[in-house]
Amino acid sequence: MAPPPPSWVQALKPAGPQGSELLQKERAQSNVPVDKLAELIHSKPVLERQQKIVSLFKSDPVFDKKQNYSMGRVERIQRALAKGKRLQQLAVQNKWSAEEYYAASDLIGEPTPYALHATMFLVTLREQGTPEQHKLFLQRAEKYEIVGCYAQTELGHGSNVRGLETTATWSPEDKTFIINSPSLTASKWWIGSLGRTANHAVVMAQLIIDGKPYGPHPFVVQIRDMETHQPLENVYVGDIGPKFGYNTMDNGFLLFNNYKIPHVNMLARFAKVDPATNKYLRPANPTLIYGTMTWVRSSIVLQAGSVLAKGVTIATRYCAVRRQFSDQDAPKNAGETQVLNYKMVQVRLLPLLAATYALHFTGRGMMALYEKNQARMKAPASADQEKRGPGPEALRAGADLLADLHATSCGLKALASTTAGEGLEVCRRACGGHGYSSYSGIGSWYADYLPTLTWEGDNYMLTQQVARYLLKSARAVLAGKAGDNDTSRILQSFLDRREKGASFDVLEVDEDIVAAFAWRTAYLTFEALKQRDVEKRSWNSLLVDFYRLSTAHSQYLVVKNFYDAVSSPDTAAKVDPQTITLLHKLFRLYALHTLEQQAADFFTSGAVTTRQITLTRNKAVMKLLDEIRPHAVSLVDAWKFPDWVLDSSLGREDGDVYRDLFHRASQENPVNDLIFDPYPWNQNVLKNGAARSKL
Amino acid sequence: MAPPPPSWVQALKPAGPQGSELLQKERAQSNVPVDKLAELIHSKPVLERQQKIVSLFKSDPVFDKKQNYSMGRVERIQRALAKGKRLQQLAVQNKWSAEEYYAASDLIGEPTPYALHATMFLVTLREQGTPEQHKLFLQRAEKYEIVGCYAQTELGHGSNVRGLETTATWSPEDKTFIINSPSLTASKWWIGSLGRTANHAVVMAQLIIDGKPYGPHPFVVQIRDMETHQPLENVYVGDIGPKFGYNTMDNGFLLFNNYKIPHVNMLARFAKVDPATNKYLRPANPTLIYGTMTWVRSSIVLQAGSVLAKGVTIATRYCAVRRQFSDQDAPKNAGETQVLNYKMVQVRLLPLLAATYALHFTGRGMMALYEKNQARMKAPASADQEKRGPGPEALRAGADLLADLHATSCGLKALASTTAGEGLEVCRRACGGHGYSSYSGIGSWYADYLPTLTWEGDNYMLTQQVARYLLKSARAVLAGKAGDNDTSRILQSFLDRREKGASFDVLEVDEDIVAAFAWRTAYLTFEALKQRDVEKRSWNSLLVDFYRLSTAHSQYLVVKNFYDAVSSPDTAAKVDPQTITLLHKLFRLYALHTLEQQAADFFTSGAVTTRQITLTRNKAVMKLLDEIRPHAVSLVDAWKFPDWVLDSSLGREDGDVYRDLFHRASQENPVNDLIFDPYPWNQNVLKNGAARSKL
Repeated sequence: MAPPPPSWVQALKPAGPQGSELLQKERAQSNVPVDKLAELIHSKPVLERQQKIVSLFKSDPVFDKKQNYSMGRVERIQRALAKGKRLQQLAVQNKWSAEEYYAASDLIGEPTPYALHATMFLVTLREQGTPEQHKLFLQRAEKYEIVGCYAQTELGHGSNVRGLETTATWSPEDKTFIINSPSLTASKWWIGSLGRTANHAVVMAQLIIDGKPYGPHPFVVQIRDMETHQPLENVYVGDIGPKFGYNTMDNGFLLFNNYKIPHVNMLARFAKVDPATNKYLRPANPTLIYGTMTWVRSSIVLQAGSVLAKGVTIATRYCAVRRQFSDQDAPKNAGETQVLNYKMVQVRLLPLLAATYALHFTGRGMMALYEKNQARMKAPASADQEKRGPGPEALRAGADLLADLHATSCGLKALASTTAGEGLEVCRRACGGHGYSSYSGIGSWYADYLPTLTWEGDNYMLTQQVARYLLKSARAVLAGKAGDNDTSRILQSFLDRREKGASFDVLEVDEDIVAAFAWRTAYLTFEALKQRDVEKRSWNSLLVDFYRLSTAHSQYLVVKNFYDAVSSPDTAAKVDPQTITLLHKLFRLYALHTLEQQAADFFTSGAVTTRQITLTRNKAVMKLLDEIRPHAVSLVDAWKFPDWVLDSSLGREDGDVYRDLFHRASQENPVNDLIFDPYPWNQNVLKNGAARSKL
Repeated sequence: MAPPPPSWVQALKPAGPQGSELLQKERAQSNVPVDKLAELIHSKPVLERQQKIVSLFKSDPVFDKKQNYSMGRVERIQRALAKGKRLQQLAVQNKWSAEEYYAASDLIGEPTPYALHATMFLVTLREQGTPEQHKLFLQRAEKYEIVGCYAQTELGHGSNVRGLETTATWSPEDKTFIINSPSLTASKWWIGSLGRTANHAVVMAQLIIDGKPYGPHPFVVQIRDMETHQPLENVYVGDIGPKFGYNTMDNGFLLFNNYKIPHVNMLARFAKVDPATNKYLRPANPTLIYGTMTWVRSSIVLQAGSVLAKGVTIATRYCAVRRQFSDQDAPKNAGETQVLNYKMVQVRLLPLLAATYALHFTGRGMMALYEKNQARMKAPASADQEKRGPGPEALRAGADLLADLHATSCGLKALASTTAGEGLEVCRRACGGHGYSSYSGIGSWYADYLPTLTWEGDNYMLTQQVARYLLKSARAVLAGKAGDNDTSRILQSFLDRREKGASFDVLEVDEDIVAAFAWRTAYLTFEALKQRDVEKRSWNSLLVDFYRLSTAHSQYLVVKNFYDAVSSPDTAAKVDPQTITLLHKLFRLYALHTLEQQAADFFTSGAVTTRQITLTRNKAVMKLLDEIRPHAVSLVDAWKFPDWVLDSSLGREDGDVYRDLFHRASQENPVNDLIFDPYPWNQNVLKNGAARSKL
């Protein structure tokens, strides 16, 4: 790389005050117990694990990040494969649990070509395979003899799984399935780990028996030779090309030409074809998969808080270091002020800081609820039911709660990932010009995160499921058959109080903020119900209202979960009362800022008055910004991202922003190894150091 | 590259109906005269020029785009330099005018390392140099003997030009300037064409004479050797590293160690140091530079419409080709519907389609106004004033209008570039999963466009200038000293009518829509004035209100310009009445959708009632979406982007989306030349084709 700069450059310091001094001052002025708060967020063992793994990575050249931002795709993906391999080696050497492996995977900071093998492929084999299939496929996959992926999406079909074109036709003669791609759009597409890495795939294909379709089912298909890694005959497979982000992953395509696989390759835990009778045997318990999706979406909510927190950490620290202009009302010759002091910067960053906590606690709340319900559904109702399993009431209540959880997880996945994706871009812009440098770190988090807004249910599509569920719940409530869950309760309570009006004191009483959000959900639900059931409007014409409704409901859920978390005895046991008070302020900032952004709906629903909206905007939010501002750096510190993970000059924990930017640009930037001939004529003359001939 | 796919793959077609059939149907169902409309947007000569240039590019391998999305930064920037050189060669060979050169530059679709030489460097030399300096620098720069850049921004200072740290100290002994970087943050940073290309820079530095600072001034500084292209002694220069986009440009850094330049190198058309007396001579006419900035910002508004139109073209065509699910209310077994038929897609795309036209006409309107005013300020008021130049009244009126234009150009630059930047991401997401593929084309337009939201005035900072101007105008109006410009008129008219109330018929009367937007601006202006002048609130605490005010005012300006354009006799002369009617619908969609998005402000200001807002949302916007939908493809066709320019599988004019995606992925994707060893142990065994040893 480049030679070190001359001594007169090395002698230069950034103009004072130094970033390190400014961050020290920030930390000194706040009484937030950063370590305690970090333990509340992550728990102590998780923090210790993180430290251990990161120090392993830092000492291993395979995980070096220096050239990540400059490399082309071919180099990047090869290095990512090396990281994936090293990770697996470390896992074996250190006897990591699955949880430790996933934590390490996450800390690498980029997807590797093994990512889909280690998650969806293994999970699907485990959950949908029979014991025989576990022996045949899962055990070898766990040893990385079989390397696999999960092939569902097709070139022409994403969200609409029922529309998949790939077929698996049962051949009674030789007891095989014939996997086939009838058209170009039937090509599997976007399949992670498929492009160059996998030698097997779980392929979702339309099962056909005796000419009759039975819908999509999973099949294990070998696609490449185990020795040469070349694609097998009648299989056409490859990488789908460069993407906006995620370029360390070999998302792939896959086509089959009447390709035969044995009967045992259809994953048969739930549905199967009886080879003796050639009959289809029905799935045993489809709700299990339903549950898995709920769990996956809950984990997306949790992860949304964390990825957004990376951007907020970087932007908050940098805005505390960066100074620009002096305050318009300040005396002449006042020094430049930290940009974090500007209300226009605060109003962009601090509600997002609040959102990181809000999403984190919401994700946690959902996962706890999910696990509690799973346990309840499995647990016997009483001792003498032990052999018979859970009683019918427990199952019914469990299913009811699961349906509620499923719908809310759809809406929350959409809201959380949109908040995180769009929030990261807000953070990047809040860093001004330097936010655009790759060394800011935010751009790559953003680019790699964006697929989350589309996968596991497109964020726009999902809102229809939420609306459908809310309409159904509202009909049940009106018919006096309200379910035993929170959604039904807020709808019922709106009906009970509608005549009297809302009159919530959102400016003073926290519970009333939660109630105002619930009121808006209920109002919009009954409005949408009227449009659909009374005015008989078409579903299509209501999609925009449904989107608004789902967003409103999901915002209510975040507000409620956040409120419950900061008010819980568990939180009170872990941090001091002052910190609890500050967390309540974050709650209010998240909630009131959202309320103000959505003012029209809140007003129209009668949840608040226009006077309250004006006061929220001009007084309450401004006051909260003032109160939270001194603790901003400590509140991002509590997320405890190691510098190695953020990989950001702007977000350095020590605030030495400008020296780091300068160092990377001048010393680690391969473009500075190039010597350009700048003249449009006489090209290449400079290459030999020869003098340029005159024009 | 990859071998062609096997014959069974080559035989596959996308599942029908084909994209080409769907787009043909779209075009057949619309009576929009696409070519006439294209001429209204671009003019016939511009369209012909575009065709000529693109066919030159297509036949020249230097401009080949196939590997753009996969290459690393080192390769990309080298190829971009080659493009820049070839462009200059073509300009000389074909005797291009400056306008033709810029058009060609724009059509390449990426910045080249010459971009700042060809624009800011030449312009600054031309506008701020004396005839002597033109001979010394400009003439050689025009021949590319001198290759330059414009070095203003520093590592520690962007928007705040007065805070620049680089100094140029007048040395009376030897009549030189000493250019110096007193700290690391004084390093010039982000300077386009500086990193590897330029051998000269116009450096903005704080002029110091006899210990006294005179503010930033421009100096021509040689930085690299003309023969070897190596940096000169006491100059430290290089590229600042990878960025979120714009990676074909060598944005650079630059530090000086007491580096001497001759007296003649200070650009001296407006301000200078008299070498005889060592005195500073004041600038002659600072408003000229003021005018240039206004012109640049107007061109950003125009360009915002065009770059957004690229994204809208791609997304609209793809959403007409892509089909997903059938309508919920459709009969069972109805085929899948084009996603462009979904209201949730329409409500995202069609208002942006309207915005492309709105921004285009607004940019045009501003530039016309600017040029008219420039002419008026130069023209003599009467024949006998010919020798004396324009009369004092013309100058005063001109200055008044220029101040208005300056403020509105700030606000419009911010609104237009934010609309385009955020709109491109909306377009990308409207393409579903495939939007994330680089082959969608939108991602790179987006990434390369984002700096526009920050440069030429950060979009958040600029809104303060707009608010300051509006407050000043409001004070003048209240004092009975209203200026002779549109801003003062709408403020006055609000005051005149305030008691009576608004009662605009925004649902039926187009003029009333414009009036409602004007009303909201005026209301928010007087509200902000009260907060500042009566309530004595701090400037900082009002920044958020100012942002809202500036946005509101800029939206009014777009609505007004759009309305004026579609109602003008010029437009009526160029397209038929049916098309005029359709353009009016686009106007209404842009305006009413904006109104609905900003409902709280419109309602609070009394410009509209809540009933009108509900009707706008539920009826008017929905109806407009229905009416514009059949013409969507034709309306984007009229932008006339050649496929070569869009470089998008999804946005192909012929609709052959899936075959193109598949072709690029399988045939043009360098990752498919890699053979992975997929096993975490026994690395590299596959490289020789050897069998893998068992674990």
